[in-house]
Amino acid sequence: MSDESETLEREHFQRIVKAFKAYRQYCQHRITERESYVRSLPPSHQSLLHPYTQHLQHQRVCIDHNAEIIKLIIKDVECMFENVHHQPMNNEDSDTNSMLGPDIEKVQSTIRQIVRDWSPSGERERQQCYGPIINTVEKLFPLDKGGRGDIKVLVPGAGLGRLAYDLAKRGFTCQGNEFSLFMLFASNFVLNKCRGINSLRVYPWVHTGSNTLSTEDQLTPATFPDVDPSDLPTHAEFTMAAGDFLEIYTSADAFDCVATCFFIDCANNIVAFLQTIYNIIKPGGYWVNLGPLLYHFADQPGEPSIEPTYQHIKSIAIGIGFTILEEETGVNTSYTQNPNSMLQYEYKSVLFVAQKKTDRKTEQQTEETEDTEEGGGSR
Amino acid sequence: MSDESETLEREHFQRIVKAFKAYRQYCQHRITERESYVRSLPPSHQSLLHPYTQHLQHQRVCIDHNAEIIKLIIKDVECMFENVHHQPMNNEDSDTNSMLGPDIEKVQSTIRQIVRDWSPSGERERQQCYGPIINTVEKLFPLDKGGRGDIKVLVPGAGLGRLAYDLAKRGFTCQGNEFSLFMLFASNFVLNKCRGINSLRVYPWVHTGSNTLSTEDQLTPATFPDVDPSDLPTHAEFTMAAGDFLEIYTSADAFDCVATCFFIDCANNIVAFLQTIYNIIKPGGYWVNLGPLLYHFADQPGEPSIEPTYQHIKSIAIGIGFTILEEETGVNTSYTQNPNSMLQYEYKSVLFVAQKKTDRKTEQQTEETEDTEEGGGSR
Repeated sequence: MSDESETLEREHFQRIVKAFKAYRQYCQHRITERESYVRSLPPSHQSLLHPYTQHLQHQRVCIDHNAEIIKLIIKDVECMFENVHHQPMNNEDSDTNSMLGPDIEKVQSTIRQIVRDWSPSGERERQQCYGPIINTVEKLFPLDKGGRGDIKVLVPGAGLGRLAYDLAKRGFTCQGNEFSLFMLFASNFVLNKCRGINSLRVYPWVHTGSNTLSTEDQLTPATFPDVDPSDLPTHAEFTMAAGDFLEIYTSADAFDCVATCFFIDCANNIVAFLQTIYNIIKPGGYWVNLGPLLYHFADQPGEPSIEPTYQHIKSIAIGIGFTILEEETGVNTSYTQNPNSMLQYEYKSVLFVAQKKTDRKTEQQTEETEDTEEGGGSR
Repeated sequence: MSDESETLEREHFQRIVKAFKAYRQYCQHRITERESYVRSLPPSHQSLLHPYTQHLQHQRVCIDHNAEIIKLIIKDVECMFENVHHQPMNNEDSDTNSMLGPDIEKVQSTIRQIVRDWSPSGERERQQCYGPIINTVEKLFPLDKGGRGDIKVLVPGAGLGRLAYDLAKRGFTCQGNEFSLFMLFASNFVLNKCRGINSLRVYPWVHTGSNTLSTEDQLTPATFPDVDPSDLPTHAEFTMAAGDFLEIYTSADAFDCVATCFFIDCANNIVAFLQTIYNIIKPGGYWVNLGPLLYHFADQPGEPSIEPTYQHIKSIAIGIGFTILEEETGVNTSYTQNPNSMLQYEYKSVLFVAQKKTDRKTEQQTEETEDTEEGGGSR
């Protein structure tokens, strides 16, 4: 790694650590703003808002609790990666900074990801999103055809690692890949530090007051982990790899199966994702995908983006060399959804299975120079 | 009006006109950005993306068509308000400006509002959102109890005016109130200029490529108006009033009924909305509300906001003097939803009917000084 890119990476790392550290102060400040606004209103309004201002106090307690979990998440992250040693930050002041807003929102969404992947309350979402993928992979590699330990599965955009863990638990040799440090910090914590089923809790819905029916809805905790993440069978192989999917996975024919869940729309250039997926799958191997097409860079200033429809994606996949074996559209799925919110997002996802050609001669196009677009990450 | 506030209002007016005028160039520029990005990719990618780049050309045609409708919408808006004459803008250059982004998004959402309120394709949404309100108001003021022309109904946050029109069509004397110039320009156009059922069309879904299954889905047009907006019975009274709800409606006991649909969460201080609603209703009159609680200012920097839960709203309404007569939660409703999108937003709205006390003596609290919070507008 060059000096320059090492410096950039260290700065990025420290920015994310800073966001986690600033969570408590930032979120408490948002409460303070609301309290100040109430105090500026006519006395009759203040009196009518008394139950609301009391509720703000309860939110403060939940935020403080989340902050304690966050302390555990970022404890020792400096030593998280074997190959890179980050200097502990000298500057501990996490003064509330308006530039921090988007990063703090990612900390908040990381808390919701813990619920999605590792809480009993995430069970329904996991059934919807991971269930069809796991069933499909198990069907493609049935137990009676030999040991699953020889079957190498990659889960790009692994987030907090639950899908990869669940596949490893079923005997596959499974690697999860994740780009976002928010996700990596949290998955490292859950996978390597959390023991004791439902021993911890977070308050995932405390950060938004909109679309809440009752105060209790906003203060509902979620416990985690719903399973002991270390309870994999001794022969199971499960690894998490940090980094950019396009940069890390350059070896052809490395995996029997690639399983992507809410991932392919994380690309600036989705074609690069599809070609990389094709390249790393062994001839005759499979790509199982489930998700919508919420292109992450569609509205991000300064980020190039293209937004092919699902129809286009299929024609691109076929053009690269895939054969579409199965396809289901309109699969009801959600993503870190508060089940009690008055606003429900539902993704009508597409689930498909694609197979790589077995004939090596037709694959020349995948050996062209790969582009080096930035990509990866999770919603 | 003071000179200063007149200047501010004129600047605001001209900013919105500018956004409408810049729509075409801005949206075409977004397409150009995508084309440039594709051209920067490896030739094999460009070739695979050929159907997508062809699709971008089709999007251009739809945007041009929308721009023609927009020309009709802003034609003569300078003379729209009887009491204010805005100077035509000297500066006609609408150079693409990154600051314009949020305003252009509002132009795009105005196009979707046309579909929600006045297109055959909006029928389902109108049934969901306006249906329960209209049924309730008709039940509260049955025909056998006398002429409905004497019943004065106000619809704050009237948007493009369909709910107010539908109530007027049923014989009520109905006024719609709207703050947003985006909405006012478009409602003025539909209500006063559009004749000939389904004589015009827009392409409401052309602006986003995310979560699209097929290219046709993105290019689907919507025709309008589904009815002739001028076909009200000759005795029907239907007016639209422009301006801030809190500033305009200061006369007590003016309306028999206030009907709010997806409106009350537009406030910085929702208590001010509730107190104003209470104040303008005649003793014994009704407030019918349907909507979620998507507080508009919750995440807007520099805007004060409070986000009471529905539980709080009820206690505030009762504290002010309302009696809750009916209540239904979990009412499935959507808001300018593309029915073919892979991402569906569903609001679990609340529908309630509240009645103002008939005993004048208990209403002192509503006669306290009203605060002067900014508010109004539509999502």
